[in-house]
Amino acid sequence: MIIIMTDPTPDQIDRILLKLRQHELEANCLQSYGKTVITAIGNSDTHEAGFYERMPGVEKVISIVTPFKLVSREFRQENTVVTAGSAVFGGNAVAVLAGPCAIESYEQLYETAVEIKQAGACMLRGGAYKPRTSPYSFQGLEREGLEILKAVSREVGLPVVSEVTDPRHVEVMCDYVDMLQIGTRNMQNFALLKEVAKSAKPILLKRGISSTMEEWLMADEYIIAGGNENIVLCERGIRTFETYTRNTLDLNAIPMVKYLSHLPIIVDPSHGTGSWRLVSPMSKASLGAGADGLIIEVHPCPEEAISDGKQSLTPEKFKQLMAELQPVAIAVGRCL
Amino acid sequence: MIIIMTDPTPDQIDRILLKLRQHELEANCLQSYGKTVITAIGNSDTHEAGFYERMPGVEKVISIVTPFKLVSREFRQENTVVTAGSAVFGGNAVAVLAGPCAIESYEQLYETAVEIKQAGACMLRGGAYKPRTSPYSFQGLEREGLEILKAVSREVGLPVVSEVTDPRHVEVMCDYVDMLQIGTRNMQNFALLKEVAKSAKPILLKRGISSTMEEWLMADEYIIAGGNENIVLCERGIRTFETYTRNTLDLNAIPMVKYLSHLPIIVDPSHGTGSWRLVSPMSKASLGAGADGLIIEVHPCPEEAISDGKQSLTPEKFKQLMAELQPVAIAVGRCL
Amino acid sequence: MIIIMTDPTPDQIDRILLKLRQHELEANCLQSYGKTVITAIGNSDTHEAGFYERMPGVEKVISIVTPFKLVSREFRQENTVVTAGSAVFGGNAVAVLAGPCAIESYEQLYETAVEIKQAGACMLRGGAYKPRTSPYSFQGLEREGLEILKAVSREVGLPVVSEVTDPRHVEVMCDYVDMLQIGTRNMQNFALLKEVAKSAKPILLKRGISSTMEEWLMADEYIIAGGNENIVLCERGIRTFETYTRNTLDLNAIPMVKYLSHLPIIVDPSHGTGSWRLVSPMSKASLGAGADGLIIEVHPCPEEAISDGKQSLTPEKFKQLMAELQPVAIAVGRCL
Amino acid sequence: MIIIMTDPTPDQIDRILLKLRQHELEANCLQSYGKTVITAIGNSDTHEAGFYERMPGVEKVISIVTPFKLVSREFRQENTVVTAGSAVFGGNAVAVLAGPCAIESYEQLYETAVEIKQAGACMLRGGAYKPRTSPYSFQGLEREGLEILKAVSREVGLPVVSEVTDPRHVEVMCDYVDMLQIGTRNMQNFALLKEVAKSAKPILLKRGISSTMEEWLMADEYIIAGGNENIVLCERGIRTFETYTRNTLDLNAIPMVKYLSHLPIIVDPSHGTGSWRLVSPMSKASLGAGADGLIIEVHPCPEEAISDGKQSLTPEKFKQLMAELQPVAIAVGRCL
Repeated sequence: MIIIMTDPTPDQIDRILLKLRQHELEANCLQSYGKTVITAIGNSDTHEAGFYERMPGVEKVISIVTPFKLVSREFRQENTVVTAGSAVFGGNAVAVLAGPCAIESYEQLYETAVEIKQAGACMLRGGAYKPRTSPYSFQGLEREGLEILKAVSREVGLPVVSEVTDPRHVEVMCDYVDMLQIGTRNMQNFALLKEVAKSAKPILLKRGISSTMEEWLMADEYIIAGGNENIVLCERGIRTFETYTRNTLDLNAIPMVKYLSHLPIIVDPSHGTGSWRLVSPMSKASLGAGADGLIIEVHPCPEEAISDGKQSLTPEKFKQLMAELQPVAIAVGRCL
Repeated sequence: MIIIMTDPTPDQIDRILLKLRQHELEANCLQSYGKTVITAIGNSDTHEAGFYERMPGVEKVISIVTPFKLVSREFRQENTVVTAGSAVFGGNAVAVLAGPCAIESYEQLYETAVEIKQAGACMLRGGAYKPRTSPYSFQGLEREGLEILKAVSREVGLPVVSEVTDPRHVEVMCDYVDMLQIGTRNMQNFALLKEVAKSAKPILLKRGISSTMEEWLMADEYIIAGGNENIVLCERGIRTFETYTRNTLDLNAIPMVKYLSHLPIIVDPSHGTGSWRLVSPMSKASLGAGADGLIIEVHPCPEEAISDGKQSLTPEKFKQLMAELQPVAIAVGRCL
Repeated sequence: MIIIMTDPTPDQIDRILLKLRQHELEANCLQSYGKTVITAIGNSDTHEAGFYERMPGVEKVISIVTPFKLVSREFRQENTVVTAGSAVFGGNAVAVLAGPCAIESYEQLYETAVEIKQAGACMLRGGAYKPRTSPYSFQGLEREGLEILKAVSREVGLPVVSEVTDPRHVEVMCDYVDMLQIGTRNMQNFALLKEVAKSAKPILLKRGISSTMEEWLMADEYIIAGGNENIVLCERGIRTFETYTRNTLDLNAIPMVKYLSHLPIIVDPSHGTGSWRLVSPMSKASLGAGADGLIIEVHPCPEEAISDGKQSLTPEKFKQLMAELQPVAIAVGRCL
Repeated sequence: MIIIMTDPTPDQIDRILLKLRQHELEANCLQSYGKTVITAIGNSDTHEAGFYERMPGVEKVISIVTPFKLVSREFRQENTVVTAGSAVFGGNAVAVLAGPCAIESYEQLYETAVEIKQAGACMLRGGAYKPRTSPYSFQGLEREGLEILKAVSREVGLPVVSEVTDPRHVEVMCDYVDMLQIGTRNMQNFALLKEVAKSAKPILLKRGISSTMEEWLMADEYIIAGGNENIVLCERGIRTFETYTRNTLDLNAIPMVKYLSHLPIIVDPSHGTGSWRLVSPMSKASLGAGADGLIIEVHPCPEEAISDGKQSLTPEKFKQLMAELQPVAIAVGRCL
C-alpha cells in the first residue's frame, strides 16, 4: 500500500505512521518537492487501503497487492484441470461444448445432441431457465427443460451444462446437470456465487458483460473461498460502443487470465459476437489465443429457434467448424 | 417491425408475407434499387422480430415499438407518485434520502439519523447486506443490521430503505424496512425482481452499472408486470473509460427517463462519482436536470467508515448541502 | 514514481537505485513479503517512468505526479478569466454562446444572431469548416462562411467563434473570428494544437469524444506550453454504450476540471445529448454543476437546417431557455 | 429510409409524402395501432435522413443504406490487393511488418531492420513524427528520422512505412517512405485524409481509438473518394473500461471488415494490448480470425527504448514468434 500526501502537517504524518504500526505494517516515508510518500507492506487488504484514504492529509492510496489470492498463478503454479462428467477442461485437448441456447423440446435437444456428439463435441449445453431482458420473452421450459436435458444426456451419452439463475434452484439442478453455469448477468450475484460454492458440481463462470478481468477473478475467488475449486472461466464478450457486433468478444482476456490465474478458460463466440458469420473465424482466433475450449450455439433449425437463433450454427456448419478447428489446434500444440 | 432484404427471391418474400399473415400483422412491401423493405404493424413483440431475422433472405429486422409498456409515458400520461412511509417521490417536493453506506452500529446509525432528519432528509438509508467485489471485504451486519435499522427508524421517526440481495430475504426484510432497494449489480437479477414484484413494499431500483436506459426500464417492467407499481428509479453512474471519477454519473438519464416513463427518478451522486468533493455540485446539477430526489451518503465520521467512506459527507457538510439545494430547488419550480 | 518489484535479485535493485541517482531522484526502498517497493521523488516526468518500467525485475511503475503542470490548479490558484472580444469566460457571469451548427447563408446567420443577442447571448457560433463522418455530407461554406460570419459579427455586434480543422487555416481564420474552436475530433491533433498555440486568439477546446479528463488537460498543456494561455474548455459528451442519447454529456467533468485546473469550462448540451428536448434540463444541470458557460445550437428553422437540426433550438425556445436559466444562475451565486 | 410517426395529423403525413416526391424517392405508407410508417427507397443519403427527422410529427428516421459505398464489398466483390514496394497486402501470404515505435538512431534502426528481415518480415516500420499525449514527451526525430529510415531501407532492402501527422508533411514524406500511416488519433483528421488521398502512396489507416467500424470505413471512403484506392486497414485496439490491457484489441473487426469491405486488414497486437506478453498469443489469434497481416513492435533493446518499450519484442522473441506463426498460417490456408 502506498499512501501519497500533498503538503501534510507533521501531525498528519504521525497519525498515519501510528495507525500503520497498529495494523502491524512495516512502513517507510519519503518527503521531497512537497510530496510525502509512505510505503507500507504487510498482510494488508483492500479494506485497509480504504481506511487510510480517508485520513486527513491523504491524497491517494495505491494498493500494490492483487486482490485475488486463491485463483492466482502465484498461489498455484500449474494449470488446474477441471472435469465435468467425461468432459475435461485445461488439459492438452481443447474442449468443445455445443447445443441450443434454450431447450425447446425433447426432439430438438436430442437431434442436436446426436449431431454435435458425432462432430466431436464433448458436452451438451442447453438453457432451462433463461434470463431475458423482457418479462414478455420466453423464459425457458424450467423444470421440464431440466428433465429433457437429463434424459437426452443419458440417451446420447454426453455430460450436460445448464445455467442456474436462482440460489433456491442450486440444489435441485445438481440432480440434473454435470456442470452449473453462472451467466453474465449473475457474475456478481454474490448470493448465487456463495450457494454454488457449496455444491459439489464444477462451475462455468461467464464474464459479466461489463466486468473487468479483476472483478471476474474476484467472483471466482468467492467460489473458491466458499469451498469449490472446480471453476472454468468463459469469455463471452464485453459491452463497448461498437454496434456492428452485439458484444465485443475480448480475446485479450485469454492470455491475460492464463498469466494471472491457474484456472482454465473457454470462449463463447456465439453470444460474444451475436452473429453466426463470425463464429468460425473467432473460434479459430480463440484457439490461437490459447483458449482451453469453446462453447458454440448449435440449433437443428436456427430459423425456428425461440431465442438467439441469429447466432446459432446448423449442425452442418458446426461439423465444418470442427473440421477447420482441427489443424489450428494442432498448429498451437493442442488437439481437439 | 421493418424487415429489410437484399436481392431476395420472390419465394423468400412470399414466405415472409405468409408468416406475417399467420401472426396477424398488417404488412406492406416496397421494392427498389435491389432492396426490399417489408413493414409490418401489429401487436408484435421482440420475440417475433428475432424470428423473422432468421428467415432466408432477411438482412435485418428493425423493431419500431418500444419494448417496455406498463412503465411507458404512453401507458400513463401523468407522473406516478410513490410513497414509502412518510417519504413521497414524484411530487413537487424533492425527496432527499441520506445515511451511511453500511450499518456499523446502533450509535453510528442513530447519530446519523438524528443529524440528517434535522437537516431535512425524509428517509434514512443503510445497508445490512452489502454486495462486495471481494469475498474478504466486510459483507454487512446482516440480520443484526436490520434490527438496528428498524430500532433507529422508530426512535428517530424516519422511514428506512435498505438493499435486498437475495430472493430468500425479501419476505423477512419487509418486516424491517419501508422500501426495498435493488442494487446496481442486481438490476438484471430476474429471480430477485420477480420476488420483490410480489411484495407490498415500494422498490428503489438502481441502474445497472453498464445498463442502457432501455434495459433499466425493462427491469422496471418486470416489477410492474409482476404486480408492484411502486417503483422509484435511481441513477447511480455508469461504467466508462474515465478514471478520474469512479463512475460517470449520467444525468442525461433524468430528462430522458421522465420523457419515456411516468415513474419518479432520483440520483445517487455519492456512488455515482465516488468522491465527496463532487457530491454538492452534482446534487445541484441533478435538481437542474429535473430529478425527483437525491440519495446521499452521510457518515458521522467518514474517516472511520467501514465501506465507501471516501465519498461520504459529514453531517455538517450534509447540512450545508441542504442549504445550498434550497434555492436551486426553488429556481426549478420545486421545493425541498 | 513508485517502482514495484516482485522477488527481485539484489543486482536488479542495485541497477535501479543507480539509475535513480543518475537521474538525480531521491529514493528509498522497502522490502517485505517478497515485494520490493522503491519510492523516488524528484523532477521526474512520464518518460522516465516508462524507462524504469522496462528494467529487469520491475513489475510496475506508478507515477505519482499529475502529468499536466501549467494548466493545474497547483500552478495557479485563482481562476483564469478568458476574454474573447466582449465575451468573458470564468468570471461571475455565465457566458452563453449560441448559433447554428453550420453557416448556411447570410440571412440564416443574421437572423439567428439578432435573435440570440436579444435573448442575452454574448457570442455567436457558426461553423464554416465542418468535419463530417461522411465525405458525401455537406462540408461547410468554408471561406465564404467566414466572410458571412465576420459581416454578421460587425452588423449585429457580437464576437464570434468558429472551428478550425487544418493547421494551414489558422492564420487566415484569425482575420475573421474572435475565438478559435478545436473540435472533438481534433483534440489530439497535435499539429493543429501547436499551430493555435502560436496564435493570439483565445481557444475553445472541446473534449475528445472518448478522451479522459487527463488527456484533455494534456491537450490544454500543449497550447499553454506553446505560448497561448487563453483557453476555455468545453465538455460536449463522451462515447459510451448508451444509445438513447447520442453522447453521454459528462457533467462530472465540470467540478472535476475546476478542482484540477484554473481554466474556465463551458458545456455544449446540444451536441452532448443530440436532442433538443434535453437541452434545457441539461443546461440547468450544467449551471448547477458549476459551469462557466453554455454553447447552444440555435437555428431560425431547425427543420431546414443542413446539419444537426435535430438538436437545434428555435430562437423562441432559446429565449425561453434563457428565462429559465436566470433563476438557476442566481441560485448558485452567478448571473447570466 | 424509414420514417416513423406517432399519431401524426393527415397534414403532417402529406407534407412528408410531398417532400419525398420532390426528392424523387419512391414511398409507401402503412398506418396501424397509432403508428404511421413511411418507407422510402431511392438514391437517398444520410443528409436527407436528417432532413426528414426534423419534420413535424416525425419520431424517428432509420437509414437502411450503408453509408459507405466505394469501400464496400457490394461495390467490389473480390479482395483488393495493395502493394507497397515489395510488400503485398491481401494476397494469400500474410504480411508481417516490424520495427521500433520511434526511430532513435541509425544504429538502432539498422540493427532492427537486419534482424526482422532475416526473421521474415516484409516491411520496416518506424516513427519519425510521434503523436504524444504530453508536450513534454519525446516527439520523434522528425526530418532526421526520415533520413535514417530511407537510408536503412536502401541498405537493408526493405520497404518502409511511417506515420504522417500533418497535412503539410505529406508531400515531403512521400520522398522517404513506401507507405503512409495514418495513426489512431488522426483517423478522423479529415484535412489529413484529403491530403493523403491525393498522394500516390498506399495508406495504412489505423482504427481510431474509439471509432466504430462504420466510422473507420467512412474514413477509408474519404481516401478512396479522394482518389487513392490503395488502403490497408489496421486494427489496433479500442478504448473500453478494462484496465489490465492498455486497449482492447478487437479481433471481431477482422471478419466483420472482410465481410463488409474488399480492403485488406492487418492487426497491431503491440499497441493493441500494450504488453509484450500478449503479442504472441494475439498474433496467432489474428491469423485465426483471418487477418491479412501483422505489425509488430521490435526493438533491439526494449529496456532502452524511448517510447512504448514495454510492449516491444526483442529480435530474438520476434524470431520465435515468426516460427510459431508459420503453422498457424498454414492451418488457416495462408502462408507467411
